[in-house]
Amino acid sequence: MPKKSPTAALPVLTRRRFLERLGAVGGSSLIMTAMTSLDLMAGQAGVRPALTGRPGGAKVLVIGAGVSGLVVGYELGKLGYDFRILEARDRVGGLAWTVRRSSEHTEINGERQVCAFDEGLSVNVGPWRIPYTHTGVLNYCKELGVPLQIFVNESDASYFYYEGNAAGSLSSTRVRLRELKADMIGHTNELLVKAIDQRQLDLPLTAEDTQRFVSFLVAQGYLDSSDHRYKAFTNRGPGDPYDFSALLRSGFGNRMRSIPARDGTAAAPMFHPIGGMDQFPKGFQRAIGPNRIVFNAETQSVHQNDAGVKVVYLDTKSGRKTEVNADYVVVCMPLSVLAGVDINLSPEMMEAVRATTYSNSAKMGLAMKRRFWEEDDQIFGGHLYSNLPLGEFSYPSNDYFSRKGVLLGLYANVAVGNLLDQPVKARVEHVLMHASKVHPQIRQEFESAYAVWWRRVRYSQGGYASGATTARRAQLSKVENRIILGSAATAPSSEPDWQEGAVSAGWQALTSLHERAMRA
Amino acid sequence: MPKKSPTAALPVLTRRRFLERLGAVGGSSLIMTAMTSLDLMAGQAGVRPALTGRPGGAKVLVIGAGVSGLVVGYELGKLGYDFRILEARDRVGGLAWTVRRSSEHTEINGERQVCAFDEGLSVNVGPWRIPYTHTGVLNYCKELGVPLQIFVNESDASYFYYEGNAAGSLSSTRVRLRELKADMIGHTNELLVKAIDQRQLDLPLTAEDTQRFVSFLVAQGYLDSSDHRYKAFTNRGPGDPYDFSALLRSGFGNRMRSIPARDGTAAAPMFHPIGGMDQFPKGFQRAIGPNRIVFNAETQSVHQNDAGVKVVYLDTKSGRKTEVNADYVVVCMPLSVLAGVDINLSPEMMEAVRATTYSNSAKMGLAMKRRFWEEDDQIFGGHLYSNLPLGEFSYPSNDYFSRKGVLLGLYANVAVGNLLDQPVKARVEHVLMHASKVHPQIRQEFESAYAVWWRRVRYSQGGYASGATTARRAQLSKVENRIILGSAATAPSSEPDWQEGAVSAGWQALTSLHERAMRA
Repeated sequence: MPKKSPTAALPVLTRRRFLERLGAVGGSSLIMTAMTSLDLMAGQAGVRPALTGRPGGAKVLVIGAGVSGLVVGYELGKLGYDFRILEARDRVGGLAWTVRRSSEHTEINGERQVCAFDEGLSVNVGPWRIPYTHTGVLNYCKELGVPLQIFVNESDASYFYYEGNAAGSLSSTRVRLRELKADMIGHTNELLVKAIDQRQLDLPLTAEDTQRFVSFLVAQGYLDSSDHRYKAFTNRGPGDPYDFSALLRSGFGNRMRSIPARDGTAAAPMFHPIGGMDQFPKGFQRAIGPNRIVFNAETQSVHQNDAGVKVVYLDTKSGRKTEVNADYVVVCMPLSVLAGVDINLSPEMMEAVRATTYSNSAKMGLAMKRRFWEEDDQIFGGHLYSNLPLGEFSYPSNDYFSRKGVLLGLYANVAVGNLLDQPVKARVEHVLMHASKVHPQIRQEFESAYAVWWRRVRYSQGGYASGATTARRAQLSKVENRIILGSAATAPSSEPDWQEGAVSAGWQALTSLHERAMRA
Repeated sequence: MPKKSPTAALPVLTRRRFLERLGAVGGSSLIMTAMTSLDLMAGQAGVRPALTGRPGGAKVLVIGAGVSGLVVGYELGKLGYDFRILEARDRVGGLAWTVRRSSEHTEINGERQVCAFDEGLSVNVGPWRIPYTHTGVLNYCKELGVPLQIFVNESDASYFYYEGNAAGSLSSTRVRLRELKADMIGHTNELLVKAIDQRQLDLPLTAEDTQRFVSFLVAQGYLDSSDHRYKAFTNRGPGDPYDFSALLRSGFGNRMRSIPARDGTAAAPMFHPIGGMDQFPKGFQRAIGPNRIVFNAETQSVHQNDAGVKVVYLDTKSGRKTEVNADYVVVCMPLSVLAGVDINLSPEMMEAVRATTYSNSAKMGLAMKRRFWEEDDQIFGGHLYSNLPLGEFSYPSNDYFSRKGVLLGLYANVAVGNLLDQPVKARVEHVLMHASKVHPQIRQEFESAYAVWWRRVRYSQGGYASGATTARRAQLSKVENRIILGSAATAPSSEPDWQEGAVSAGWQALTSLHERAMRA
């Protein structure tokens, strides 16, 4: 156990201290510049810590090679720590899993699946999109050389399809987002221009500005330039506009906004790695180098005392148990898994670990012989807007105009019926049956499916940490002598459900660890 | 000269005949299906001809390996013709030129440039975007295995910047498209909701629908849900909304539409090949195979008689002239170049050739040390909306978050001042000087430039055919015994300024040639 003093006076330069310093030097505009370049503008909680000080010979074990564990390992390496990462699976990434030909897993108490997609086809069954505001992830992609492409999160070609009587007279009708936008704005502008033309409105505008306003409304809404009526027009596609009342009653317009959100699932633009989301964790793996990550290492116990931490892991290939000692341990496995590990943390900590719940997330990839959504429907990325029991049904934002493709047939974060308890074949049938209401071609073009219900995935036992309150996160973020938790559930941001949360959690654990090690 | 009769009774199956046949068999719904799959829905003029009949031993020379010549060659190969393509340059693609490290050209009466971009950087100095409706090009990309990615043609992060007094009080101010959209719709909806709330409006809606309408307007415009006012809000970014009158006077709103156009420069989505636009012609080159395309072969004369055509070309490397004989010749070089070739076409044809004018197109790529538009401004693709003398100034839709990047500093299809007559260095200075008004970082980050003024590019002598009328196109499309013109200027569609026009022109020439050869 090293007791060397750190080589720099300031062991940890937190974001706040960094900004305070800049402020002291250069005034508030310099702070703003720094904040911009540090990407705080978008209101992100996490900024990569600027840590200084050499750790001496401190030895660290990181448990879990998901995104948070990889962040910790990568940064520990840069700081000069002696570290190892124990990973129970035979791959990095945790939830950031891209399924492709020969990917396989056996569900807890369930079936084994082996992916039969053609070579070159894949589906992200965990995280799949990175909003442009998630600069933690994006800057790592830049640093690690992970090529990114646009994720099309909203496509005007997308269909709305509400069955039952959910959309009034437009129920069970395929209405394109393009048609909805054109018609809602067209009808609205027609009403407004009519009122202006008939002088019903008391506008706070000069006559000239009123004329400019009318010109804007006519052009924006594609109104007829002479009679100011909204009519069928080429760009909308074939057919007459939908009736305004019918549209208002459909509720489709609830999805329309003047501009997209800056965060969350409506942010634009979004990105995803070329070749699958697992290229992101693989980028860390490449940078960390060989011999640092021990695969197939299932952690069995973590015991600390004042002198260090003893970790016992099972090599799931050989069946052999190995004991390793370290000065510090950063636990980056899901808390749902940690709850079953023999670890000496305080009762308060274990209570917070057990109280953290995980989402019931599921995804299903459907390999198709033909990209019929592109060829027949001119849909390139984006999602189906429906009330079908499929959660999100989405079209690939990659390999456009190639021959085959993989649809995301289902993406849900809560239970969809009792599918969790059904055989994979029944789940696939459920998805095909519902999806064929919108895409009748889907059965004929179907080739194979791969279903991932995260509650049934070993070493995950759920999706993202969904139940963490601020108070619980504060507890989970505490350093207990030589053990620090670092999984996304501890993220200081409110986004444990994004990879950005895993990155923030990693940074937080790293900072805590470094502070602790520098004190030692 | 072969005189064999064709092996099939129906030599040419035109689009119309094909659809008529389907109609005779299956009724109008079958026609609609066929039209959908043939991509006529979007109103495109061109459909790939379904030609039948074997050509016997007919020998064809295609002059020019631009997109139209490659289409002709590729399809001739599939039909079993004996063909060669003569290309004056050392590469395929013609205008579809991607400039990268070591690309070079010497301007007509001007300077030599050698591209000094880093390996991996490139810029499309000819066509650069493919609207989703251009299914001729896109289906060839699919068939030839040319991977495509999204071309971001509109980005909400883009700036408006009008200098002088062009935008009233918002002149010389960087206003984001996102801010414009939010503010225009926010102000509009506030006015409309206020009028509804105050019962100024005589709406043709029930009370319930009126309530739904108000809810829509409030949500879409991000109005305050209690007082229905439009105020600053997070998604818009920092700062207060712009004044409505100031926005109306700026004219920025003239670019806003409820939905994008289906064709032309506003179509969405658009695509471009991964790795540069030249991957498209290179896909044809790969499919056509070696020994079919003769490079560095500058055509000097084309003489036909009843027995055949004699073509003389100069090997620009060896200086040797070669005479080749063929049964038919398809001339796919720009008409501006053809006008200077010794060719025996009718006076009417040569008049139409000489009367066809070509655009004064220019592009400049600017390699930057750092993608400051992404890092500092969160701009990912799209264009600057300005009245600066730069034509279009655009950000790359590829390799996001990589280190360096190439900006399109200028893209114009008409003369920009007298830049055509200035040294390259002065043109670069012009672009940097104006662009730095919007992006002050551009000088510091500038690495190198490459300028292509197509009027000064040998074997092009201009951009796209801009002056072709319907009557002239009809003349240019005529078969004169054994010679057929096939460059984009002859396109039956109204789009000689897109690669889709080159494809259509190729199909038209191919069809005419095949009909002629089958008659022989």
